[in-house]
Amino acid sequence: MPEAASAQSVRATIGDSEFDRDTAVTRRASGVYDTELSAGWTVINAVNGGYLLAVLGRALADALPHSDPFSVSAHYLTASRPGPAVIRTEVVRTGRSLSTGTASLFQYDDEGQEVERIRVLASYGDLGALPDDVRTTAAPPAMPPMDQCFGPQDAPAPVPGGSAIADRLLLKLDPATLGWALGAPSGKGEMRSWFGLADGRDTDPLALLLAVDALPPTAFEIGLSGWVPTVELTVHVRCRPAPGPLRVSITTRNLAGGFLEEDAEVWDSADRLVAQSRQLASVRLA
Amino acid sequence: MPEAASAQSVRATIGDSEFDRDTAVTRRASGVYDTELSAGWTVINAVNGGYLLAVLGRALADALPHSDPFSVSAHYLTASRPGPAVIRTEVVRTGRSLSTGTASLFQYDDEGQEVERIRVLASYGDLGALPDDVRTTAAPPAMPPMDQCFGPQDAPAPVPGGSAIADRLLLKLDPATLGWALGAPSGKGEMRSWFGLADGRDTDPLALLLAVDALPPTAFEIGLSGWVPTVELTVHVRCRPAPGPLRVSITTRNLAGGFLEEDAEVWDSADRLVAQSRQLASVRLA
Repeated sequence: MPEAASAQSVRATIGDSEFDRDTAVTRRASGVYDTELSAGWTVINAVNGGYLLAVLGRALADALPHSDPFSVSAHYLTASRPGPAVIRTEVVRTGRSLSTGTASLFQYDDEGQEVERIRVLASYGDLGALPDDVRTTAAPPAMPPMDQCFGPQDAPAPVPGGSAIADRLLLKLDPATLGWALGAPSGKGEMRSWFGLADGRDTDPLALLLAVDALPPTAFEIGLSGWVPTVELTVHVRCRPAPGPLRVSITTRNLAGGFLEEDAEVWDSADRLVAQSRQLASVRLA
Repeated sequence: MPEAASAQSVRATIGDSEFDRDTAVTRRASGVYDTELSAGWTVINAVNGGYLLAVLGRALADALPHSDPFSVSAHYLTASRPGPAVIRTEVVRTGRSLSTGTASLFQYDDEGQEVERIRVLASYGDLGALPDDVRTTAAPPAMPPMDQCFGPQDAPAPVPGGSAIADRLLLKLDPATLGWALGAPSGKGEMRSWFGLADGRDTDPLALLLAVDALPPTAFEIGLSGWVPTVELTVHVRCRPAPGPLRVSITTRNLAGGFLEEDAEVWDSADRLVAQSRQLASVRLA
């Protein structure tokens, strides 16, 4: 077998990958889904918010007549834990080009009480049906090629915040936004990284829900350490990503009153702005 | 009576103004509110999306234990009309510092069927309880003083898109973003304006929900005309606004596939970034 074909054959594919297995949902009844939150997508002990959004996004893709997330708003209520969870969806409206629904993820607490972890409100459509006009003025982030960027695997010692999720992602951060890892944060609320799935699976709209919340928090480069829990995260998926690595740029401009916003842009290998997101997060000032 | 006191006395106040009367809700039962959508906040025949958000926001302020909107996500389902409406709220979670709830606005269609117009998911808190740290890098929009800006009242002929809402707002647009009104759009997706309520009522967090969707669409300056219906709008209220006029800056960077995002920043007279929002809107390309 030629080497190229061989290399190709070991790459995971959409539908058969860690990400697909770990975001799988099983319909138990109309609108109700069982899932198992994997410990493989945790940061320290917290389940990553983008991974959770992808799990909920997959349930909504099944519950709604449209399969692509266009606008997904998530409010994070209580901290999710690896293990079983139930997702309950409601179809709010079905239209010709857009459908809207809600999804809630529940887990049992130590007392056996069902606790809601996340509530999502989302509109879905068909990205393939959109016209191909592009009149964007946004430009891809200026960042070095991937081989001049650095990921958790390149660190001499474990990176602060390095965690199980690091094994599942291909993250290569722009060295200009890596000061925090060397004890010298730039003071600017910027983080830029190449992004992919470690097993080589190409990205798709569901994976974009993961990509927008996969980088270390901008707060690290501002010079804050510690936990920056997401209160709310809204993602707009604007285009189906082309195969190949993505570039993700996140920016914080307004840290005030114990909260900050984190804006993400995701660009694909064809230089299309494929997703935009904003989250409101709470910060604990030192 | 001294002139200053006399001038003061004719200004509407928070709680006694057009905006308060037209966003009033009456609790019919636990979590259920009656309201009357006013024809005074329409653009052409459409009820303004920010006004609708303020109505829903007022119902949630009553339904939740916290009174200030922190993050409000609205999905616009069908076109609202002036007239009676019912709002149903659900308390999702109540916490010490944040509470989360949903609100849905319904009207009857011509066949007497109840139709949902808007679904909102929101987290509320207490802006007065936030620490007063400000480490923002965002800067207020550069724009001329109000007396060098222009509103609908300054137009020699009715402005396209000028409507009932124009009588209730103090909008003074930066002439640099007014090319569209003179038939010469700049091609840039930017719009900047001074903002206030015409009767002199100061703004508050509820009025910020109106402010983020009150300007003419950025699409006009891009050179598009026609309707730009909002699919989804998320607002983060970051600070209680100081008295005095606000400055609102809206920006569109990515017009593609028949959709655009519109980002708003709202600054108060004390140079605080008091609200940030993003909406996803659908465009009809000529």
